Amino acid sequence: MNGACAVARTLVGSGVEVCFANPGTSELHFVAALDDEPALRAVPCLFEGVAAGAADGYGRMTGRPAATLLHLGPGLGNGLANLHNARRAATPVVNLVGDHATFHKRYDAPLESDVDALARTVSGWVRRCGDASAAGTDTAQAVAAAIGTPGQVATLILPADVSWSGGARPAPPVAARPPATVPEQTVAAVAAALRTGEPAAILLGGAATRAPALRAAGRIAAATGARLLCETFPARLERGASLPAVERLGYLAEGAMAQLDGVRHLVLAGARAPVSFFAHPGLPGLLVPDGCRVHILATTADDIPGALGHLADTVAAHTPAVLPAAGRPALPTGALTAETAAAAVGALLPEGAIVVDEANTCGLWLPGATAGGPRHDWLTLTGGAIGQGLPLAAGAAIACPDRPVLCLEADGSAMYTISALWTHAREELDLTTVVFANRSYAVLAMEFQRLGTPADGPARRDLLDLSRPCLDFVAIARGMGVPASRANTAEGLTAQLRQALSEPGPHLIEAVVPALF
Amino acid sequence: MNGACAVARTLVGSGVEVCFANPGTSELHFVAALDDEPALRAVPCLFEGVAAGAADGYGRMTGRPAATLLHLGPGLGNGLANLHNARRAATPVVNLVGDHATFHKRYDAPLESDVDALARTVSGWVRRCGDASAAGTDTAQAVAAAIGTPGQVATLILPADVSWSGGARPAPPVAARPPATVPEQTVAAVAAALRTGEPAAILLGGAATRAPALRAAGRIAAATGARLLCETFPARLERGASLPAVERLGYLAEGAMAQLDGVRHLVLAGARAPVSFFAHPGLPGLLVPDGCRVHILATTADDIPGALGHLADTVAAHTPAVLPAAGRPALPTGALTAETAAAAVGALLPEGAIVVDEANTCGLWLPGATAGGPRHDWLTLTGGAIGQGLPLAAGAAIACPDRPVLCLEADGSAMYTISALWTHAREELDLTTVVFANRSYAVLAMEFQRLGTPADGPARRDLLDLSRPCLDFVAIARGMGVPASRANTAEGLTAQLRQALSEPGPHLIEAVVPALF
Repeated sequence: MNGACAVARTLVGSGVEVCFANPGTSELHFVAALDDEPALRAVPCLFEGVAAGAADGYGRMTGRPAATLLHLGPGLGNGLANLHNARRAATPVVNLVGDHATFHKRYDAPLESDVDALARTVSGWVRRCGDASAAGTDTAQAVAAAIGTPGQVATLILPADVSWSGGARPAPPVAARPPATVPEQTVAAVAAALRTGEPAAILLGGAATRAPALRAAGRIAAATGARLLCETFPARLERGASLPAVERLGYLAEGAMAQLDGVRHLVLAGARAPVSFFAHPGLPGLLVPDGCRVHILATTADDIPGALGHLADTVAAHTPAVLPAAGRPALPTGALTAETAAAAVGALLPEGAIVVDEANTCGLWLPGATAGGPRHDWLTLTGGAIGQGLPLAAGAAIACPDRPVLCLEADGSAMYTISALWTHAREELDLTTVVFANRSYAVLAMEFQRLGTPADGPARRDLLDLSRPCLDFVAIARGMGVPASRANTAEGLTAQLRQALSEPGPHLIEAVVPALF
Repeated sequence: MNGACAVARTLVGSGVEVCFANPGTSELHFVAALDDEPALRAVPCLFEGVAAGAADGYGRMTGRPAATLLHLGPGLGNGLANLHNARRAATPVVNLVGDHATFHKRYDAPLESDVDALARTVSGWVRRCGDASAAGTDTAQAVAAAIGTPGQVATLILPADVSWSGGARPAPPVAARPPATVPEQTVAAVAAALRTGEPAAILLGGAATRAPALRAAGRIAAATGARLLCETFPARLERGASLPAVERLGYLAEGAMAQLDGVRHLVLAGARAPVSFFAHPGLPGLLVPDGCRVHILATTADDIPGALGHLADTVAAHTPAVLPAAGRPALPTGALTAETAAAAVGALLPEGAIVVDEANTCGLWLPGATAGGPRHDWLTLTGGAIGQGLPLAAGAAIACPDRPVLCLEADGSAMYTISALWTHAREELDLTTVVFANRSYAVLAMEFQRLGTPADGPARRDLLDLSRPCLDFVAIARGMGVPASRANTAEGLTAQLRQALSEPGPHLIEAVVPALF
């Protein structure tokens, strides 16, 4: 058995079922190995950023890693932005990167580059497989590294001759690092802080944004009056009228500071102490208010739901969580804006939907419009590297073929990984994409307003404006095999969204909205 | 003056005229600075790989660097593949990467990553500007590093607070490293080797593929019988009936070995000793034949045209170069294939054209069909990182607005950086793109044939096939504002190509051809 076959067989034995692939010559033996492993589904991606983002979406929804298949340093380079997002999401990913044959690297051939250095910037675990005989065990360890607590990107670099050489054999699964149990005294200390009656907030992150932990957190909040917040960009936030409502920490420092104003005890459950997304002249980077004590209940290496459950049993034994008022917005009419578009989404959101949110400034009203709706998952831009949405949605749809996926995407961000639409079509994914076309990098216009600099100038106009020409997402989507339409009114959007959600397969709706900034 | 203004002013003073930009929040002050520098043209790109590839194309055609403007680690990551190609092309590029404010990095905010490590993989020079007072001098040194001999990617990392802080001032240009003069005795030794009458070849690279050096090399070849070869993927090869013909070294080891078979003296002028692009089981990596002596006439750090001129004066004082037979292929008719498409290109190639060649397997007949045509430049995929063509063509068109640019692009490669088409439209570039749609990663099918593995299998079919659905490049191009048409016959291609070349502005033609493998 050659190394590539041992890698593929080991992946299957370790529970890996999907490989998001953009292979090149040095990965051919692995492609051939996939032919012999029908349990490992090969999903073609036309760009490595699509493969990486899809692996992230798949891992967020299943808790199990997908494999990628990338081609040397440049292929890994193209995948780095979405691997960065996966790293910030603590998503398990087995990142397979082919490389030149071991004996070929000395020649500095045209595609030679420092794959290891690139891999280290996004991976919690990196190994270069040196010999076919190690291919199986290295792969098993990569899977274990990926699915440990917290999840991470585990990069296995596979030289071409390791893949093609014989003498390899598959390896059995390796145990992954389990979550650590939070000590009794930590829970007791947090309970004591919450019982002081002083203003408190609980900041949820990682596994704390999933249903079991949310229910516990909701009880704690109800019993103690602590405010329930979560990270600005949660990897996977479960939401809807049947779960306690959680406010996301604001993206702008001003907003987050207002949310945390007066808090004397900040309890961290799977989240880190809040910092501003970007530095801003004259604003603090660390957003913990003066005089506020920070209590770490659980880190991402811990059993977060267990710790919250224990804390709930301690401080809220008989208190139920407060649930949001159930209800949906009315179907909007009239002008199509970010606000009416959000109402359309809220009005029509299907039960069990997976919402991928890269709507950026156009998404301002989305959380409010969906909070009281049916149960759903909300996946966000964890690492801030735009170009995530379309790939992430592909991975989520492959992870959960029985659930509708709704990808809410900004026009500027969509263009970074637009070829993901072809994968939507090829894999016949049940996935509706709404592109909010405000024809602007509006978030930058907003930041200029915050800076108080003059609102206009020739370079600024050229670099922030996405018209001249306008992007026609209907044409682009159809060009990649995705049925598409354009909405210019609220009625148009609701009709098109209703239709897209009622049909299987991918759809794209271009929702033309004015820029907010 | 703030740091950003000092950077922009210094760039202008050092001769930088274009900035290919995809900025984010941390680059806003630089964007504002561009408003005050009309001599520094800001070109918006919808993806960093477009900005990087365009800077490469611009630098190859002018010999002067363009600046990029990229957003933190993920933005640099998206640009790495085309910066890798620029590195292999020895193109001068001033790669500006914004980063978090110096005081914000400690917080490990979501977009934080190891920018420096990423930059080192593609850059000959990396500096992190630590203070606004150094912004001007650091910028001047970055330009000098970029335009030294050989050219290189010089990355300047600009923290947001360096950009927004005052106390900066522009710096005057810094002298760049000039080419070294090749010693007399080196030229004499090579002359002696060539005069032995033993079979010899001259391998040209870097500046040796430009007209002055080619003319000298042609005289040397004519006088000594040495074979004239150049690197497989030259950065910029000047060609046409008025220049000596140069064979490019074959992409496959088998081909290159045949070209070099029997050679006893291999003279390197700006090229390195030839190695195979990929390792292949049973084939050598180093392609210098047994018993062949390698003579280094000039490295990329040397005055290559000077050395070749000196050698020509030594061995070929009165011998003119042999020029290729002038002539073009007849206008093709009938079925559209890679071969008839090449004939169409050869028949219609405009005088002074810049040809960007990322046609891959579809490009097999292109060099032959154009060798005897009018003078033109041929830009190739120096680093093997696909997704170069559309961005490179944009940069070349901006560099040379008075010359027609013809971008010959494979369908698979086109999709990596397809949003470059929008920049073609926005900047109204005189640029005709022909996408060869063979609907396959045919180069991988060819490699499977070379390996002698079974030709088919489910994963292989899924991963190499680009149909199901077919990409409609006409729709995609129109969706980005580029007029487009589809050719299914040779007559159709010639008519559409003639029309596109006769009109200003961008065009795209999808040429549907069968896959060769």
